Amino acid sequence: MRILISLVSSSTSTGLHLLSVSRRLHTKISPFSTLIGLKPPPAMATSEDSLRRSLAEKQSSIESQGNTVRALKAANAEKATVDEAIEKLNALKLDKSVMEKQLQAAVNGNGPDGSINKEAFRQAVVNTLERRLFYIPSFKIYRGVAGLYDYGPPGCAVKSNVLSFWRQHFVLEENMLEVDCPCVTPEAVLKASGHVDKFTDLMVKDEKTGTCYRADHLLKDFCNEKIQKDLSISAEKAAELKHVLAMLDDLSAEELGAKIKEYGITAPDTKNPLSDPYPFNLMFQTSIGPSGLSPGYMRPETAQGIFVNFKDLYYYNGNKLPFAAAQIGQAFRNEISPRQGLLRVREFTLAEIEHFVDPEYKSHPKYSEVADLEFLMFPREQQISAQSAKKIQLGEAVSKGIVNNETLGYFIGRVYLFLTRLGIDKDRLRFRQHLANEMAHYAADCWDAEIESSYGWIECVGIADRSAYDLHAHTEKSGVPLVAHEKFSEPKEVEKLVIAPVKKELGLAFKGNQKKVVEALEAMNEKEALDMKASLETKGVVEFYVCTLGENVSIKKNMVSISKEKKKEHQRTFTPSVIEPSFGIGRIIYCLYEHSFLHEAQ
Amino acid sequence: MRILISLVSSSTSTGLHLLSVSRRLHTKISPFSTLIGLKPPPAMATSEDSLRRSLAEKQSSIESQGNTVRALKAANAEKATVDEAIEKLNALKLDKSVMEKQLQAAVNGNGPDGSINKEAFRQAVVNTLERRLFYIPSFKIYRGVAGLYDYGPPGCAVKSNVLSFWRQHFVLEENMLEVDCPCVTPEAVLKASGHVDKFTDLMVKDEKTGTCYRADHLLKDFCNEKIQKDLSISAEKAAELKHVLAMLDDLSAEELGAKIKEYGITAPDTKNPLSDPYPFNLMFQTSIGPSGLSPGYMRPETAQGIFVNFKDLYYYNGNKLPFAAAQIGQAFRNEISPRQGLLRVREFTLAEIEHFVDPEYKSHPKYSEVADLEFLMFPREQQISAQSAKKIQLGEAVSKGIVNNETLGYFIGRVYLFLTRLGIDKDRLRFRQHLANEMAHYAADCWDAEIESSYGWIECVGIADRSAYDLHAHTEKSGVPLVAHEKFSEPKEVEKLVIAPVKKELGLAFKGNQKKVVEALEAMNEKEALDMKASLETKGVVEFYVCTLGENVSIKKNMVSISKEKKKEHQRTFTPSVIEPSFGIGRIIYCLYEHSFLHEAQ
Repeated sequence: MRILISLVSSSTSTGLHLLSVSRRLHTKISPFSTLIGLKPPPAMATSEDSLRRSLAEKQSSIESQGNTVRALKAANAEKATVDEAIEKLNALKLDKSVMEKQLQAAVNGNGPDGSINKEAFRQAVVNTLERRLFYIPSFKIYRGVAGLYDYGPPGCAVKSNVLSFWRQHFVLEENMLEVDCPCVTPEAVLKASGHVDKFTDLMVKDEKTGTCYRADHLLKDFCNEKIQKDLSISAEKAAELKHVLAMLDDLSAEELGAKIKEYGITAPDTKNPLSDPYPFNLMFQTSIGPSGLSPGYMRPETAQGIFVNFKDLYYYNGNKLPFAAAQIGQAFRNEISPRQGLLRVREFTLAEIEHFVDPEYKSHPKYSEVADLEFLMFPREQQISAQSAKKIQLGEAVSKGIVNNETLGYFIGRVYLFLTRLGIDKDRLRFRQHLANEMAHYAADCWDAEIESSYGWIECVGIADRSAYDLHAHTEKSGVPLVAHEKFSEPKEVEKLVIAPVKKELGLAFKGNQKKVVEALEAMNEKEALDMKASLETKGVVEFYVCTLGENVSIKKNMVSISKEKKKEHQRTFTPSVIEPSFGIGRIIYCLYEHSFLHEAQ
Repeated sequence: MRILISLVSSSTSTGLHLLSVSRRLHTKISPFSTLIGLKPPPAMATSEDSLRRSLAEKQSSIESQGNTVRALKAANAEKATVDEAIEKLNALKLDKSVMEKQLQAAVNGNGPDGSINKEAFRQAVVNTLERRLFYIPSFKIYRGVAGLYDYGPPGCAVKSNVLSFWRQHFVLEENMLEVDCPCVTPEAVLKASGHVDKFTDLMVKDEKTGTCYRADHLLKDFCNEKIQKDLSISAEKAAELKHVLAMLDDLSAEELGAKIKEYGITAPDTKNPLSDPYPFNLMFQTSIGPSGLSPGYMRPETAQGIFVNFKDLYYYNGNKLPFAAAQIGQAFRNEISPRQGLLRVREFTLAEIEHFVDPEYKSHPKYSEVADLEFLMFPREQQISAQSAKKIQLGEAVSKGIVNNETLGYFIGRVYLFLTRLGIDKDRLRFRQHLANEMAHYAADCWDAEIESSYGWIECVGIADRSAYDLHAHTEKSGVPLVAHEKFSEPKEVEKLVIAPVKKELGLAFKGNQKKVVEALEAMNEKEALDMKASLETKGVVEFYVCTLGENVSIKKNMVSISKEKKKEHQRTFTPSVIEPSFGIGRIIYCLYEHSFLHEAQ
């Protein structure tokens, strides 16, 4: 096993020992594993479909040949004829059994030569990591807790080196403002960010024992099991199940529940019936202070700590944009039933960057340093048309508008350099663009750095242009404007629409509804206001729909004054956009182990 | 302000930039503060007592002189005589007012010249730290949460450098096994460690509003306020209040409640009556997984993560003692009402070492490297006899038995070197031994590294010999033996007592109580067993008290066989002792700022 670390570096070594020292740990393995290849298998070659079709054909040939044999026997045909027919039947059966093995290998992701499968490879990696204390299931002597792992001494050294390299590559290289905020977070912050209301997974309960499961996982397991183990299903059924797998993240609670009913899925341990799916919030809840009146949560991400400090950080940066803030720290997600070992855990280290930028100037001064990089990208178009990821030059992706803007492109390039310098195999790293339905409505563009492991392609870094969403949300909920200013070199003259409702007249006309009418008038956009102005000037009165009242009211000329005024402005005030590269450190380290794992024959 | 950091170190610098670069930040302060001295004041000179006595004498002189004046006036004495008496009275009053100022200065810790007081110094430090974003009160735009602070960019850089120096000075220097465990901890672990039952503070509630306060804090505030502000109290009363302050940590809930009643202490904000004190557990509670059936806590210390991994770490170390494990990480304490700004917070970074050692060999191979160090120590004896800390050579303290053993002494020395190399002023650093009543019953010895700050002497590092307590507790609750073995070079012959109850006879005699009698017999210690053996041999029968039955039973000679047998043993099995240096990183950093703070006149 090759580990890219100096476990215990001497006091004189420099920051980059991560890369300068490499060690080889020989794993002693039993002789049979000499058969195991040096590398995990490449991604599944999808000859599966045609195999499934051939298998179905072969099955029907066998059935028809079986009928032939029975007919010959019933007709007391000559022994030679019957034997020939039986031989043909046996040959067909042999063909079928070979095909079954090939199909089994194809769905397990093995080569047709039947070499190592992904599970065996993963087991070898995980056994080594646990035996050598890279990881230890936490609280093992108390039978552990699913989804919690300790880093043992070598794992801890790797983590510390990965983090110091991250700090070097991003924070120090770009003069980012690093902050360190608490994990305990009051409800108001996570209410504003949307986590209290929306950070949920759909859960089903065993109706008799109360055991909880993730609804999408049960459906996923069912589909995978069917595809992999039940070789008799038709190619059409297999395609349907694969479609369900592809749509899994988009299914609503009702749709998930319907599929679970349709397929007759029951609780895996007891076979008891399951409840309908319902949302479960993934944050660990707690209470701050002794009164029990201040709910709090363990943060599910480190980003919010940066957003709420925007004002101070902007000031610290001399009130200039762009600038980036960064934070490394623990984050917590109370997974319903964590699986995938080290990849889906309940507590993990995140390293996040929030790069604040003027939405009108998303170029980046150092963009040219990464524009020539060429690596595997998987744009939306390729995914929809069922193509695979392909090598694209980053500069080309940006200039063609595949990547939304230069700054986003710059960070994609920097992430590529970070991961490959760390030791991730560049041929098993791709940048996948989010599909429209995966992306939050406010996001301008979003790319995941996905690393191929024995679990498939794993999202390890998310790089999102979140536009102004987060700062807007906190501005609104806290009442503190989180905005930036651009000072004009000389004052600009701008024309501004002024809507001035005449409250006295409106009060006389609408009494208790006056306030709602005033608000509706003030909320008009420019076109509505100018239309009203024109109508009032020609007709003197206009029907106006007030949605908070749910009805039309008559607005007369004396009730509102609408005009355009010229004003001198000295600066422009706006909410910055934020571009967020967010790193799951534990996942990156695990993939690094898989990519560095090397069996040697004894 | 002098800060011992290189905020953004270049990629070529080595690990020790903390010490190699120093910067001076000039704080712009208003002209009046040119009066402020360069250093915070020395510890309070206790002329307070004598001043209080003189003041009381002066007061009675004034009263008697007042009577004299009144008597003279009543007797229509000569004007010259009366004037003389009045002049004397005025002189006495002037004396008194000078004395009051001196006393005020003494209790505020100011020099008699009335220079800077501690609060003003602290305010200057904290203002600078917050203005320059070393710290930011967390979630400020949502009006913050008491006891939670962010590290802003320079604070974050200092913290990162302090931690990397700590890792260099302890973990790498001593080849410690560093681990990194989750903050979320299941109840079983903290039940075993005692935190679920005993990690509490006493709380009182405002009986009308429900606001919570720490009971000891209210009593402490009352006493301090009286001593500092009420100059009229007698020296005896002042002594009583000081005694209460000294005893504060030892008071039971009942005693605290009684004192609060006796002094008529009410809720500080509302003056409402207070409830009786009752315990409040300081851990943040949460729930692991979706069922709500697995209670968990945010860890209050990092140590337990190491203890539960003892078995794996011992194996990793080749089954050899001594070895040390270390962990840096977040810890959480849900303080009732956090005060003391940056010193008492609800979430903080701990760096803890657990050095496991054979209880019979507590020497340390590198002890000689620190034995010649000489620094301020404050042993138990000096505290009890009201002396102050004095310079002692570490080697002398160990050889005289003031420090319990060499390994404990070694770590005290290493902590001294760590703190002073970091920049802590050695004249404002002392090692204070815990008094017998401060120490847990299982602890062999315990010393705190205390740093003097504007808040007084602050415990920043605890260095405790916790004997075998923690490993014992987890062995008992988990059922997994957390023990070490010493292999003998050749087998040793040992004599072992064998108590063999004859169950058949005991069954006949005691029926249903047989099991309890058997257990009681087996639980006898060596002396009890040998006494019984002797009695049985002479008298044939003996009365034996079975505590689980609550009565005596008659044991006859045929019911038990007691003998001494010789056995060959190949190894000794024992529970290691643990010596635990535990560092409050935030407190150390805050004290470092105070010790590095330097005002310069404009």
